[in-house]
Amino acid sequence: MLTEFGLALKYVRARGNTLYYLADDGTEVGVFDAASGFGSLMFGHNNPEIVEHAKWLLDQQTPVHAQFSGYSFALNLAAELNTVIRRELQTEDKFFALFGNSGAEAVEISIKHAEMDRGARIAELKAEIDTHVEQARTAVANGARVSADAAAVVGGTDFDHLAAEVARRNAQTEARPPLFLALEGGFHGKLVSSVQLTHNNEFRAPFKALAAQARFIPRDRPELIAKVVEDERSTLLDVTVQDGVVDLVERDFPIFAAFLIEPIMGEAGIFPLSAQLAGALREACDTFGVPLIADEIQSGMGRSGTFLAGTQIGLKPDYIILAKALGGGVAKLGVVLVNEHRYRKDIELIHTSTYGRDGFSSRLALKVLQMLEADDGKAYQLAAERGAKAKAMMEAIKADYPDVVKEVRGVGLMLGFELHDQSDSSSPEIREAVEHEALAFVIGGHLLRKHQIRIFSTASNLETMRFEPSIHLSDEEIARVDAGFRDICQILRDQDASRFE
Amino acid sequence: MLTEFGLALKYVRARGNTLYYLADDGTEVGVFDAASGFGSLMFGHNNPEIVEHAKWLLDQQTPVHAQFSGYSFALNLAAELNTVIRRELQTEDKFFALFGNSGAEAVEISIKHAEMDRGARIAELKAEIDTHVEQARTAVANGARVSADAAAVVGGTDFDHLAAEVARRNAQTEARPPLFLALEGGFHGKLVSSVQLTHNNEFRAPFKALAAQARFIPRDRPELIAKVVEDERSTLLDVTVQDGVVDLVERDFPIFAAFLIEPIMGEAGIFPLSAQLAGALREACDTFGVPLIADEIQSGMGRSGTFLAGTQIGLKPDYIILAKALGGGVAKLGVVLVNEHRYRKDIELIHTSTYGRDGFSSRLALKVLQMLEADDGKAYQLAAERGAKAKAMMEAIKADYPDVVKEVRGVGLMLGFELHDQSDSSSPEIREAVEHEALAFVIGGHLLRKHQIRIFSTASNLETMRFEPSIHLSDEEIARVDAGFRDICQILRDQDASRFE
Repeated sequence: MLTEFGLALKYVRARGNTLYYLADDGTEVGVFDAASGFGSLMFGHNNPEIVEHAKWLLDQQTPVHAQFSGYSFALNLAAELNTVIRRELQTEDKFFALFGNSGAEAVEISIKHAEMDRGARIAELKAEIDTHVEQARTAVANGARVSADAAAVVGGTDFDHLAAEVARRNAQTEARPPLFLALEGGFHGKLVSSVQLTHNNEFRAPFKALAAQARFIPRDRPELIAKVVEDERSTLLDVTVQDGVVDLVERDFPIFAAFLIEPIMGEAGIFPLSAQLAGALREACDTFGVPLIADEIQSGMGRSGTFLAGTQIGLKPDYIILAKALGGGVAKLGVVLVNEHRYRKDIELIHTSTYGRDGFSSRLALKVLQMLEADDGKAYQLAAERGAKAKAMMEAIKADYPDVVKEVRGVGLMLGFELHDQSDSSSPEIREAVEHEALAFVIGGHLLRKHQIRIFSTASNLETMRFEPSIHLSDEEIARVDAGFRDICQILRDQDASRFE
Repeated sequence: MLTEFGLALKYVRARGNTLYYLADDGTEVGVFDAASGFGSLMFGHNNPEIVEHAKWLLDQQTPVHAQFSGYSFALNLAAELNTVIRRELQTEDKFFALFGNSGAEAVEISIKHAEMDRGARIAELKAEIDTHVEQARTAVANGARVSADAAAVVGGTDFDHLAAEVARRNAQTEARPPLFLALEGGFHGKLVSSVQLTHNNEFRAPFKALAAQARFIPRDRPELIAKVVEDERSTLLDVTVQDGVVDLVERDFPIFAAFLIEPIMGEAGIFPLSAQLAGALREACDTFGVPLIADEIQSGMGRSGTFLAGTQIGLKPDYIILAKALGGGVAKLGVVLVNEHRYRKDIELIHTSTYGRDGFSSRLALKVLQMLEADDGKAYQLAAERGAKAKAMMEAIKADYPDVVKEVRGVGLMLGFELHDQSDSSSPEIREAVEHEALAFVIGGHLLRKHQIRIFSTASNLETMRFEPSIHLSDEEIARVDAGFRDICQILRDQDASRFE
């Protein structure tokens, strides 16, 4: 597919916002990279300061492999992440760090932690019920009796029968697999479990039988959360004794392990969540006792103009996941930060990784964090300012081409430029491209060849071009994208596919 | 736990087989590292040639992030891996490479591929059955009749009823989640799905409800494979027509997605599989149509004396998984190599990774491969020769301390030194340590402090110390381990826990 649209270039060098390939005559051709590792390149490809630091770390013979040791470098990184996150969330709470080697791995780790937490919640509930059953047994020995209502439920007034029936029904409920909550259009990675929390059916469906499932909620209808919870509600039977009467009550079974969201939904088409939704999510998670996980893999690390994109909507998550830009465009790592009030430290005994918490990526990520925080957060300001300038450019195009451009969305340097659907285009070539889900590749190919711009659509919204360059985005680069986008808009306005190069 | 046993040292530098920490007075103390990143360090920590190459790649501004492009570096690596693997497997078959960022990710990718393959096998079978049903429908329209046997199965002689019943029963069977086959004691990583193929119950049980399950076979009883397959057997109903009679036949439903094995079982306690088992596994997988996946994450990359450990037992896998040493101790990557005859290329459309196939790790892995292959495979010879010398040292200790040392196992530089169980020790301290699963940490702590040796037990066999240093293992290092192990053996022979430092 990439070859077909001339996108399968072999890039040999990368620097700043530019990727270079070799032309047929062997000369380097530079291409402006708006994709930027899907948001991984806050400071650009091979940022000189990061590269120098990486080389210095190699010269220092930084240990990569020191499993089962003090992991001082990972601990330093966790401490610095805490400082930044606590400032943004305006909390004194501590966050425990669990490290993986990619964003998807970090999501998998968050799933494991959430399931461990759910297991502990279930165990606590069961212990409570067991205590109540024993209290009731004693009460019955002392003359208490099973109520008519309870006898009707379990089919008899005998207490031993009631206890056995409670145990049997509760065991059935406990056998239900856990569920997750996520947003429609959400993207949380593609490993076996994480892909089931990724809404896109094409990515998810072939692997459905492999892992626990999610229920997806439309981001503009938070009121549906309660309905989905009610749909999936299971209860455990508990026993009470009052005035010598043994009765049954229902206790909610923790069927949901976690609610995962992206504060700015990336693959859905760059949709920032609203402050209202952030509030509704927090409230729903509190009501139903479910941890709220903010997947900031793409939106975090300053891209939005603040360290966490969630900060701008007042989001208060229980876990935060970071990856992509955390490695500075060189190292691979991901981290889950779990609020101390929801942290289950046993996870450290049973979850480990050979590459996780390695010295090289931890130290490099610490450097990245220091670069973000330097000069009173100049990097955040640049993300906001450069992003606003790029967004204004796109808004101006939309004003000139309202027939072609549907919407410009996003915050900071996480922008989406959405075109109107072309499925009823008067051009058979354009219609056919839409039909084959290939129009974004046609547009991308044209921008690449004619304008030396590398850009792709988001994964689940093929009309939206994703714009996520580094903070060193220049006015010249903005002007180049302006010209490229206008060229595309004119071609689409004219419905003249013959002009696509 | 690590802190308790004095193992939580903060290592600041690593080179060759040595990790360095800072003593209280600030001086560096070097420790011989027998753990070596659980087999990740074929050429040692921060090997100068690898480090120089890594720095050169950074200077070259090698693209790390160039998603949706030609990925020439990953393709070069895949081509070179093919050359080596085809030589070892003595085949002309081509292997397709799927890249991840760790061994565990590579296992997850292999699971996805296997499930996609299973889905395709099910779809083919269903299409065949659908065709047969339509053929039978036509035959019935032309006078054929439903047999008495078939009528008894579906409860009636009406063909429409039979067809509906076949569809209903088949849908029930298809709803069963897939199963995997693996070996007891096997270890295949700890992400949500991979951990379910890892036998150790402590790692696996809390997450059981999250992902598809495996059935585990003892490695010394391959005859049980057929029994397990029979236990789990499901069938789909198919329809035949012969001599004007419609009958039902059972077709095996592909319930098993894959059989995962390690040619040398690492966490189980360093158990090399036998050639006989390798043959039995191949035969069983052929019989039941299940792909055989060789997890060579720890055993591969030359550690055994050949590139693949499986080569020495004539193993013929359908997929091969490599990671750990593939990154040369610096980069993080994993790869699944899938035989062309079992490859489903659609996986490339739906499985992607931001960090996967990156230029830096691909080029560094290519360098590692070249170092392995250089000088007629001198690295492999060194692994075999140094390993044999270390093993002879351990065998000599066993000869002197048969009361303490149970067995010495392994191939090349993947060795296990198993002590007799000390749970009935005459020393209360030693008994208590065993009870708390901590004796290996006590021994490790002693070796660390008294002998400057860093060594751990395998994850699932706590009596077996894992010895996996680099090929640059020196005679002096072997002598140091000799002295350290003999010291431990004498303490255990004397049952004198007071001498543990």
